[in-house]
Amino acid sequence: MTIETALEHLKTLLGDRFSRTKAELDHHSRSESHFAPIAPNAVVWPISTAEVSQIMRICAQEACPVIGWGAGTSLEGHGLAIRGGVTVDFSRMDQILEVHAEDMDVRVQPGVTREALNEALRATGLFFPVDPGANATLGGMAMTRASGTTAVRYGTMRDNVRALEVVLADGRVIQTGTRARKSSTGYDLTALMVGSEGTLGLVTELTLRLQGQPEAISAAVCAFDSLNDAVEAVTETIQMGIPMARIEFIDAVAVAAVNAYSGLGLPELPHLMLEFHGSDQAVAEQAERFGEIAADHGARGIDTATRQEDRTKLWEARHKAHWAVMAANPGKRALVTDACVPISHLAAAVAETQADIAASRLDGPILGHVGDGNFHAILLFDPDDPEDRAAVDDLSHRISERALHYGGTVSGEHGVGMGKLRYMQAEHGAGWDVMRTIKRALDPEDLLNPGKLVAQN
Amino acid sequence: MTIETALEHLKTLLGDRFSRTKAELDHHSRSESHFAPIAPNAVVWPISTAEVSQIMRICAQEACPVIGWGAGTSLEGHGLAIRGGVTVDFSRMDQILEVHAEDMDVRVQPGVTREALNEALRATGLFFPVDPGANATLGGMAMTRASGTTAVRYGTMRDNVRALEVVLADGRVIQTGTRARKSSTGYDLTALMVGSEGTLGLVTELTLRLQGQPEAISAAVCAFDSLNDAVEAVTETIQMGIPMARIEFIDAVAVAAVNAYSGLGLPELPHLMLEFHGSDQAVAEQAERFGEIAADHGARGIDTATRQEDRTKLWEARHKAHWAVMAANPGKRALVTDACVPISHLAAAVAETQADIAASRLDGPILGHVGDGNFHAILLFDPDDPEDRAAVDDLSHRISERALHYGGTVSGEHGVGMGKLRYMQAEHGAGWDVMRTIKRALDPEDLLNPGKLVAQN
Repeated sequence: MTIETALEHLKTLLGDRFSRTKAELDHHSRSESHFAPIAPNAVVWPISTAEVSQIMRICAQEACPVIGWGAGTSLEGHGLAIRGGVTVDFSRMDQILEVHAEDMDVRVQPGVTREALNEALRATGLFFPVDPGANATLGGMAMTRASGTTAVRYGTMRDNVRALEVVLADGRVIQTGTRARKSSTGYDLTALMVGSEGTLGLVTELTLRLQGQPEAISAAVCAFDSLNDAVEAVTETIQMGIPMARIEFIDAVAVAAVNAYSGLGLPELPHLMLEFHGSDQAVAEQAERFGEIAADHGARGIDTATRQEDRTKLWEARHKAHWAVMAANPGKRALVTDACVPISHLAAAVAETQADIAASRLDGPILGHVGDGNFHAILLFDPDDPEDRAAVDDLSHRISERALHYGGTVSGEHGVGMGKLRYMQAEHGAGWDVMRTIKRALDPEDLLNPGKLVAQN
Repeated sequence: MTIETALEHLKTLLGDRFSRTKAELDHHSRSESHFAPIAPNAVVWPISTAEVSQIMRICAQEACPVIGWGAGTSLEGHGLAIRGGVTVDFSRMDQILEVHAEDMDVRVQPGVTREALNEALRATGLFFPVDPGANATLGGMAMTRASGTTAVRYGTMRDNVRALEVVLADGRVIQTGTRARKSSTGYDLTALMVGSEGTLGLVTELTLRLQGQPEAISAAVCAFDSLNDAVEAVTETIQMGIPMARIEFIDAVAVAAVNAYSGLGLPELPHLMLEFHGSDQAVAEQAERFGEIAADHGARGIDTATRQEDRTKLWEARHKAHWAVMAANPGKRALVTDACVPISHLAAAVAETQADIAASRLDGPILGHVGDGNFHAILLFDPDDPEDRAAVDDLSHRISERALHYGGTVSGEHGVGMGKLRYMQAEHGAGWDVMRTIKRALDPEDLLNPGKLVAQN
């Protein structure tokens, strides 16, 4: 029972889809997170569910840890092989298996990226709405319960995965859910797997809900004098039932970075960026009603963009905000926080966070999916400076504690991984023990992504 | 370790909120289902989470089964004490604890009914949208993953429960979820509990999502020459992204019963009944666009109802359709089927079911939440006639098999209980074993609603 024996068997099974080269181990030792890299012992690239099951059986036999890998875009160290073992890279399981246009669903392999899926769907009149910014794989997005800018309208991965095929820790293959739009037969294993970060099984197929491409889309951007005004406008918009497709907050510091990086020329003030989906008439009405609400809260005029090139420019700028901030701060590394609170506490939570950052030695622009109560501080630090490291730890910790204080969650969409483990007890209490009980029941040898989500820290 | 010992302790703990009277045992021995009554050994009425936890600890100590009880409206025998034990009736835990209007959520005890909640919310401008017809308790609705006529727009209980407080089999109390609108921290215990039918824990508090009361509501009813035309109109409406709040199918036989019972005077043809929610302008546009689609599919004109009394009459008639059918068939009992299939197979599934019923000795009007692919046949039988009983079993079985054949589920919203146990292996395969593994991990002595959902049959 050794990892080395497992590797021999895997090499025999997979041939050149097994690798121990330094380049591959390095590539799979890091993700877009602030953690130091930790490499697996080997990487494998299965091409079928049957192979994933065989890999899992070999690893179970030899007590070899197994870590799933999508596009490596996770931020909390989910993909790091902290107890060694084999990383299962799903990039060669990238087929779109069936599009059911009439049922508005699609069956895909886990290595399909969201951009590839939407490209393939273009002619069908349908699209997959969850948009975390990064071009993540759909398997990875399901496993971290990803969301992003459109969750306010279309929900998170929790709401958009209809069914899964999963390889369990002992190699068994299960189907969770059906293609029916709803069911009341039994425990919701689909929901249990979504967000489980590869600790309960490896997803080998996903059936995803699709949406009709909106007939019309318009975007708007609007400046406010204060964070509080902007957040109050958001709250009222949600309460009025105006179905914004996106509603994003971006603070003055982030606006400055985005202006420089994407040439936007916005005033250096807090902004909301919005998108509306619907019929021509519905979109016009939504934009008009939002405009009235925004004006009531002191918005400094609204720029609307109904032309696709203007919208694309605006949202590309938003999605590149992280890189804009990095470009404005050469040599720095970023820790991106992910607090999510009830909307009624959002303004306070962001304002206190801004004050914390202002009082610290660090810069930290703030962006937020404010319709969900979720905001990110991009905390910039010099990784070689111990004082910077201490400051970033302190700020990040205060933000997480604040999220809990306001009845929220330490991670709206980035997951637990390694980075949020230390808050699991505080956020879930005895519920975390229940998670651990479930983990032990389904993966008694702790082979699936050990050290994450349910690990004692 | 006996049930009798448990009852003694419970009586001491609860005084007059413990009962073994025949009337109470009888009342808790049946629900609105076709099963023969089975009484518990006693009924208790806790008034706090602490009491529920104490009850559970006593029952765990004495290996006494525990069955949760809401309003007794379930259809698959969920509340029947098939191994004896104590029924925990939540009717005295009926407080609305906190309304957070700004966050659009509410914290309630499990015994609050959905009508009581909406009555209490009226002045806030908010409402709770899930509407199964029956005035069920919110705890019961969560435990069976209920839905109903509005799920096409607002989702099922899966989508509308934000957080729970649950007493586990050993008496521990856990909180699942937070008041944040989304979270990616850990296994989704809220979703695991919703639909678990009291087999994993007893829910003692629920935090529910609310919706803004729509500014305008309109309703429409429209006759079609055939089922197929009606279903095609529904499919196209959904694909166009028209956000109907309700879209219900009712067949010619059911229309006749509803006409007689509620004085509606509709032509005896298949009908769709719709409701639109939104701004005045949005509602008008939705109704107009649906009208165009319906006309393309041969609808025989559309009656719209924007006045509240007309709408109320229409939807009361729909919600009383079950009783209308029962009144038209005096002396008969009903078994209500609950297949849910992908929309693309709905027309075929309903047509084949109609043909089955026509070829049988029984009557069976069909109603459906067609926007979800979910339809109910109300199979009418004489419970004292063995041939009727055989016929109803056969029809019900054929409908369930058909749901599975078309990639759907045997129960869209009524749950498993006792009635759908025999299809669990076929619908979930090895996934049912996983459910059983989870059940054993969380309730190793099988005390919580034994014989349901995960029971070997």
